[in-house]
Amino acid sequence: MRYVAPLKDMLFVMNELADLAAVNTLPGCEDATPETVEAVLEENARFCSEVIAPLNQTGDRQPSAWKDGAVTTTPGFKEAFKAYGAAGWQGVQHPVYFGGQGLPKMVATPCMEMLNAANLSFALCPLLTDGAIEALMTAGSEAQKETFLPNFIAGKWTGTMNLTEPQAGSDLAMVRSRAVPQGDGTYKISGTKIFITYGEHDMAENIVHLVLARTPDAPEGVKGISLFVVPKFLVNADGSLGARNDAYCVSIEHKLGIRASPTAVLQFGDHGGAIGTLVGEENRGLETMFIMMNAARFAVGIQGIAVAERAYQKAVSYAKDRVQSKDLEGSATAVSIIHQPDVRRMLMSMRAQIEAARALAYVGAAAFDIAHHHADAEVRSSHQAFYEFLVPVIKGWATEMSIDVASTGLQIHGGMGFIEETGAAQYYRDARILTIYEGTTAIQANDLVGRKTARDGGAVARDIIARVRKTEAELAAAASADLQAIGRHLAAASTSLDEVVAYVVANIQADIKGVFAGSVPYLKLAGIVLGGWQMARAALIAQQKLNAQEGDAKFYQAKIATARFFADYYLSQAGAYRSAIVAGSSGVLALDEDQF
Amino acid sequence: MRYVAPLKDMLFVMNELADLAAVNTLPGCEDATPETVEAVLEENARFCSEVIAPLNQTGDRQPSAWKDGAVTTTPGFKEAFKAYGAAGWQGVQHPVYFGGQGLPKMVATPCMEMLNAANLSFALCPLLTDGAIEALMTAGSEAQKETFLPNFIAGKWTGTMNLTEPQAGSDLAMVRSRAVPQGDGTYKISGTKIFITYGEHDMAENIVHLVLARTPDAPEGVKGISLFVVPKFLVNADGSLGARNDAYCVSIEHKLGIRASPTAVLQFGDHGGAIGTLVGEENRGLETMFIMMNAARFAVGIQGIAVAERAYQKAVSYAKDRVQSKDLEGSATAVSIIHQPDVRRMLMSMRAQIEAARALAYVGAAAFDIAHHHADAEVRSSHQAFYEFLVPVIKGWATEMSIDVASTGLQIHGGMGFIEETGAAQYYRDARILTIYEGTTAIQANDLVGRKTARDGGAVARDIIARVRKTEAELAAAASADLQAIGRHLAAASTSLDEVVAYVVANIQADIKGVFAGSVPYLKLAGIVLGGWQMARAALIAQQKLNAQEGDAKFYQAKIATARFFADYYLSQAGAYRSAIVAGSSGVLALDEDQF
Repeated sequence: MRYVAPLKDMLFVMNELADLAAVNTLPGCEDATPETVEAVLEENARFCSEVIAPLNQTGDRQPSAWKDGAVTTTPGFKEAFKAYGAAGWQGVQHPVYFGGQGLPKMVATPCMEMLNAANLSFALCPLLTDGAIEALMTAGSEAQKETFLPNFIAGKWTGTMNLTEPQAGSDLAMVRSRAVPQGDGTYKISGTKIFITYGEHDMAENIVHLVLARTPDAPEGVKGISLFVVPKFLVNADGSLGARNDAYCVSIEHKLGIRASPTAVLQFGDHGGAIGTLVGEENRGLETMFIMMNAARFAVGIQGIAVAERAYQKAVSYAKDRVQSKDLEGSATAVSIIHQPDVRRMLMSMRAQIEAARALAYVGAAAFDIAHHHADAEVRSSHQAFYEFLVPVIKGWATEMSIDVASTGLQIHGGMGFIEETGAAQYYRDARILTIYEGTTAIQANDLVGRKTARDGGAVARDIIARVRKTEAELAAAASADLQAIGRHLAAASTSLDEVVAYVVANIQADIKGVFAGSVPYLKLAGIVLGGWQMARAALIAQQKLNAQEGDAKFYQAKIATARFFADYYLSQAGAYRSAIVAGSSGVLALDEDQF
Repeated sequence: MRYVAPLKDMLFVMNELADLAAVNTLPGCEDATPETVEAVLEENARFCSEVIAPLNQTGDRQPSAWKDGAVTTTPGFKEAFKAYGAAGWQGVQHPVYFGGQGLPKMVATPCMEMLNAANLSFALCPLLTDGAIEALMTAGSEAQKETFLPNFIAGKWTGTMNLTEPQAGSDLAMVRSRAVPQGDGTYKISGTKIFITYGEHDMAENIVHLVLARTPDAPEGVKGISLFVVPKFLVNADGSLGARNDAYCVSIEHKLGIRASPTAVLQFGDHGGAIGTLVGEENRGLETMFIMMNAARFAVGIQGIAVAERAYQKAVSYAKDRVQSKDLEGSATAVSIIHQPDVRRMLMSMRAQIEAARALAYVGAAAFDIAHHHADAEVRSSHQAFYEFLVPVIKGWATEMSIDVASTGLQIHGGMGFIEETGAAQYYRDARILTIYEGTTAIQANDLVGRKTARDGGAVARDIIARVRKTEAELAAAASADLQAIGRHLAAASTSLDEVVAYVVANIQADIKGVFAGSVPYLKLAGIVLGGWQMARAALIAQQKLNAQEGDAKFYQAKIATARFFADYYLSQAGAYRSAIVAGSSGVLALDEDQF
């Protein structure tokens, strides 16, 4: 199945909703002119469609395979990764000094979407490497940066995140891996890490593991965890590769999806100790890992949008091709199934959710750029707060949405959807990991409730709602019946969200379990209100363009119709979420363990 | 993973909600005493748990395999099917005259649920055989009945349904298979049939295909389709097996799920013609097939409940075992994840949807029994109408629910859920066929809108809503806050349903596409209102038992809490469905084909 990057929608969102022109004026973002950005996106689209996308189904059928500690990836992956590095795509958002392109996150985000849409399994290798770059940029020593970053950015070496252990999944306090200082500035690392994405493979010259472990006298819990960099091959002083380090892949998992991406069990230190160096300070590893994890969480949200887009394109193509049954209004002969109202409903549900999530994510990326580059500290800080509020929503909501969208895409294929050769089932299987790794939806929701809402008494949440209200006022003043309907749904939904924020803030002390019982519904409510807000903003702009007879009228009409659909079908759910969150916790918590 | 049949809930539903005692008084149902029924269910539970359930994961790993036209099923299936037939389970609901147990559908239904929960792939063989029995009972000649029914019921021969052809899926009007009369009462059948469940296998001595085909002078469309019985081995006059018939399996599909169940492509008549006999009259095949399909649709709804129950049991077990993180209220050490509120929410969402769907399906089965056995024609006819309204709802809603429940079950397992060896992913894959085969959810929804609602001007729908209103009145009069809250949600939801019925009836002529654009939301709305109604009835009864200090208080308290959860989380969605159906069609239908 071909992949055609949705450049038109991407550029609309970037230019009209996320204000690329404003980001372009920020110090350090001068290169990101609209023209350059469009050229970068077009080139990336070509690369992803032509080089990476064709390997997607291959990877599902010929997944990575483990033998005697070595992992052979899907045929074609090694060459594709080499081309990816050579073309400079690993460096889009990384510093020019280390060989990157130094473009804003807002530009890297659509590139990330395209790579993931092309091939979720392949894209995980660059995604994890981005995380490693982020961690070393933040907390690495100069020597670590000089040693690793240019090789990461050139696509010669790749990075991994080693958090999970058999007893320590969502709860990193239980990490047991050990790191013993050797007196020479290095540490000997030992322990077992599981679920390590691209923990072993044959696509790069070196694999650099970022590993959470405890030093001998570290305190218990999360405040006794340090972060180490442990390369597969030690690096000599001149930068050449040295001895094989004692970090071995003992097996890889047999998974439901993303089968081309090797998920490794890594054994550190079984043969004398793996040599690693500390990143940042001892016992502060989790802070650094969180920076890396926040970048990764945002990226996994993008993965959700990406796989959903791919599933949508496949479903549209099938719906246009497959001829079955007459038109309901009585055509003479059978028509393609895209004429059936329920197929329309399914396609619109896919499209509307994807567009809403994409808009929200790209707006989030722009906020990140402003938070990192704006001259004014107050502007930086307010945008940082907005971005941080959005990260769990983008990760949690966009990935939950992707499962629904992939499932709907399969449904549109009817019986053929259930046959593996068709390819629709792969998206349904692949998408299923996204709500789990980099923190389950519940973990995202806990973050949203605890750190992002309750901690500041709901201040950031209310600021955002106030911005939504301004859009509602514009919609109410519009002449179009569609915009007014969208405005009514948005107003009702943002009121529900406002009530939920008040409920969370008021009750978190006295009824912590009751509040957290509604955490995932709260996350989903925030997703539909904020996604619906972006769709409403898009509809307003589309209407202006239509009024001014500017640009592609079909595109803008579709944008309004899709926003209308989102309002009728998704914003309308806000009241049910509110009811579940505010009044539903007693039912959630009523049963004893033995009543299950 | 063990399967423990939920006998307590099954018997509660049968005795308290579906009124087994009343069914037991019907002519022909005298054997179905509460004591006999309980004994049958216990024995069936034992058989399914001990003999069938252990083969479920085996079947996923060692699916049916095709070689040179023959299909070898999963090791153990053949022996298990022999035991199934020998124990009389194929005959539970079929006539004593042909070797069955002659028990009501209401008793066969929990047996069907248990078999499917134990092993969806295995259960499909008996399920299709039930359909073939139903078709021959309805329209077969005496000779056909005598030849085939005793062998079906004894579990010696199995049946198949041959509808789909490559160009004829949801639209059977496009069936092209040919049937040419031979002048001796037989026909020569030729054509290709696809997606034939258990179309070839090694578990039975003979496989009897029921095949839709056209005679040479048949009219176009659905009124020119006849039904034929085409056995794999011809049957001699003395009942012994004769020559191999010209019906061959040319391949089986590589599927996302239910992998042990062979899905065959059958080629009829490539070597001189397959010999078949007509079932019923020429050109009326679809009517008979619809009887068979209605039974099968109800059964697929039960499959949804069954796989959901299995996924729920697995998730509960994992949630009780897996220790991770401290309790939110601050326990000294880590606790099992069932203590986390979001895990509770997920488990309750699974449990509540399963219990609601089970109750609705069993109540439907009781209506079927009354419709078939009651002495009074008017009572029969009103119950038949009720049952027919429920069939698309049970099929469509319970299967959509099963995908959600299986996905939630996987989520509860975290990263382990994505690993195939864990087993949770199998339910997610297996369940995914249920909204597709025997008519997609859209086909069920079209049936609900067209034949079941619009055709009688909404009369049956309103009768049902009036019954729901009576339950609301009882809830409003109750002293318990939970029951009152359930009553408020049910009243709001049934009002939404009532408005939607009015909308459907009023607009189907003038705006057929607009109405059908909301058909699946209408089906889901009907599902939550009718499922919520049964949960509300259950809660009322549970409260009476508690008030009277009768029975197991923990069970009844859990029933009320689960009904409350269903109301807060699902009945609350009714308004959003109403909004989408009544006001949402313009967004669904706005785009041109080329705007997708």
